[in-house]
Amino acid sequence: MSRLPDRFVIGVDLGGTKIHTALAAGDGNILAETRVPTETVKGPSHVIGRIIATIEQIREQAGVSPGFIEAVAVGAPGPLDVANGVIHFAPNLRWRDVPLKKLLQERVQTKVMIDNDANLAALGEHVYGAGRGVENMVYITVSTGVGGGLILGGRLYHGSTDGAGEIGHITVLPDGPLCGCGARGCLEAVSSGTAIAREARRLVEHGKGQNILAQAGGKPDEISAATVADAAAGGDPEAASIISLAARFLGISVANLINLLNPDMIVLGGGVMEIGEPIWQGVRLEVEARALGAARAHVQVVPAGLGRRSGVLGAVALALQLD
Amino acid sequence: MSRLPDRFVIGVDLGGTKIHTALAAGDGNILAETRVPTETVKGPSHVIGRIIATIEQIREQAGVSPGFIEAVAVGAPGPLDVANGVIHFAPNLRWRDVPLKKLLQERVQTKVMIDNDANLAALGEHVYGAGRGVENMVYITVSTGVGGGLILGGRLYHGSTDGAGEIGHITVLPDGPLCGCGARGCLEAVSSGTAIAREARRLVEHGKGQNILAQAGGKPDEISAATVADAAAGGDPEAASIISLAARFLGISVANLINLLNPDMIVLGGGVMEIGEPIWQGVRLEVEARALGAARAHVQVVPAGLGRRSGVLGAVALALQLD
Repeated sequence: MSRLPDRFVIGVDLGGTKIHTALAAGDGNILAETRVPTETVKGPSHVIGRIIATIEQIREQAGVSPGFIEAVAVGAPGPLDVANGVIHFAPNLRWRDVPLKKLLQERVQTKVMIDNDANLAALGEHVYGAGRGVENMVYITVSTGVGGGLILGGRLYHGSTDGAGEIGHITVLPDGPLCGCGARGCLEAVSSGTAIAREARRLVEHGKGQNILAQAGGKPDEISAATVADAAAGGDPEAASIISLAARFLGISVANLINLLNPDMIVLGGGVMEIGEPIWQGVRLEVEARALGAARAHVQVVPAGLGRRSGVLGAVALALQLD
Repeated sequence: MSRLPDRFVIGVDLGGTKIHTALAAGDGNILAETRVPTETVKGPSHVIGRIIATIEQIREQAGVSPGFIEAVAVGAPGPLDVANGVIHFAPNLRWRDVPLKKLLQERVQTKVMIDNDANLAALGEHVYGAGRGVENMVYITVSTGVGGGLILGGRLYHGSTDGAGEIGHITVLPDGPLCGCGARGCLEAVSSGTAIAREARRLVEHGKGQNILAQAGGKPDEISAATVADAAAGGDPEAASIISLAARFLGISVANLINLLNPDMIVLGGGVMEIGEPIWQGVRLEVEARALGAARAHVQVVPAGLGRRSGVLGAVALALQLD
């Protein structure tokens, strides 16, 4: 007879497009999980209602009654206040000063914890993924945007006002493209999926990039990082050059982090990393050229180990107080 | 009757040109200090002999017998092994794999501690200078080179192999000037005193920069960051433009550090900061343009409080185990 788990927690990864919720045991084993659209346009109370619904759904699915849920932890985007659980500003949720922790706590009647989504993805990789057991680790997610989290001295590093780890807003090309944050040449503005698609669309506007356009079914609006990657994989030199430029700046940022933090490991995750070798090649080249000897010899630069579960498993780890 | 100090330690700041040694009491008060030329060309044992001589000189000057010195701490350049006290590679000392801790310990017969010079300057500013009482602080020294040290969670952060804080080797201009480390566009290659002087000499080689040349007594070899600063202060637009470019890249790096580490404070020291307002202006502009809202609103960017004593007082703090 197998022993019943003695602890149950719920982790929530709250994104602009999807809510990913998982119920896990004390060993981090996921017993039930679900992904639903966020439906951001309907406003914060609607979204919070959907979070509650996913929690109830997986609780029933796993057969765990409410009183047995030790804690619910949520990874949320945007600058936020960890202690008070307030989301200050999350453009992709269209939220401003939403007291998420308080609002959830009223409904779930158990302890609620909130942290930044990229921080929790870093924690997930540190506790359950590629970075298990390392002391100093940087996690970077390259997706629609670029985010990150820092594990320093074996613990999540939040900075002085919970704002640390904004790796997407490291300047890599001072007079480069405008970033969503208002500055020029941020990593996010040159290496994110959005930046890759934007560069391809710019080519098409100038009558070039025809292989990329064909990959997108002839519709410029449907060009994405994936269509650029597909065109590059098919041998298109214009697409390959866009990918390699994005990879180059990602590699420069990785080298910067090695020189600054001398970590044991840098973990790269997010959709853009799924492009694979063309991205990794650019990263390796710049790390080789720019990271300093001893720090470079020590660091491992590796892919995320948990795929799309980094965030939700980080929330589980927070709920289990493994941060 | 004043009470005698109950603890005595010695701090040494070992640089490529000077050895700065101080004897301090347990409260960090300096009782005696001296600065002598390093005489690097005569090799490691000669330099170590000179360190010993400064220690004996100030010990006698302060009237403290050898048995009362609790510890000697040394800040040394280059990648080094803190635990074993080995300097792996220090180009400006021309040292390679020098077991400084062991060699000193044989001679001074007390505990010897070694750390990176920029780390100790950061520690000095944190314990006795501008950063007293802050939790997270970045120290940057802009001098012949650019170095740095990180105080995170109230403690010196060394990274995984004692290589953290290499702020001078953050890439700020990917295809920029060649750096001593072999990469292009490092902060050190565009904002150090050496870089400022190099840009001015380049102008002069092209028949321009005549005001700067005049400031250097007509001798291109005597152009330094100080002569460029003097020409700029005298209204020379070419000199002003060199200074403002160096300031701009320093400001970009400061903004990067704010976004990445969300510190309470960034402390800027070193000779180039003595240029004053023209450098600070460029730094402020880029921080304003690039650092993210909440982190920017929180951080203080301030000048070093200890001037040329940051390093030696950091060594004193290490000897007193205040790291």
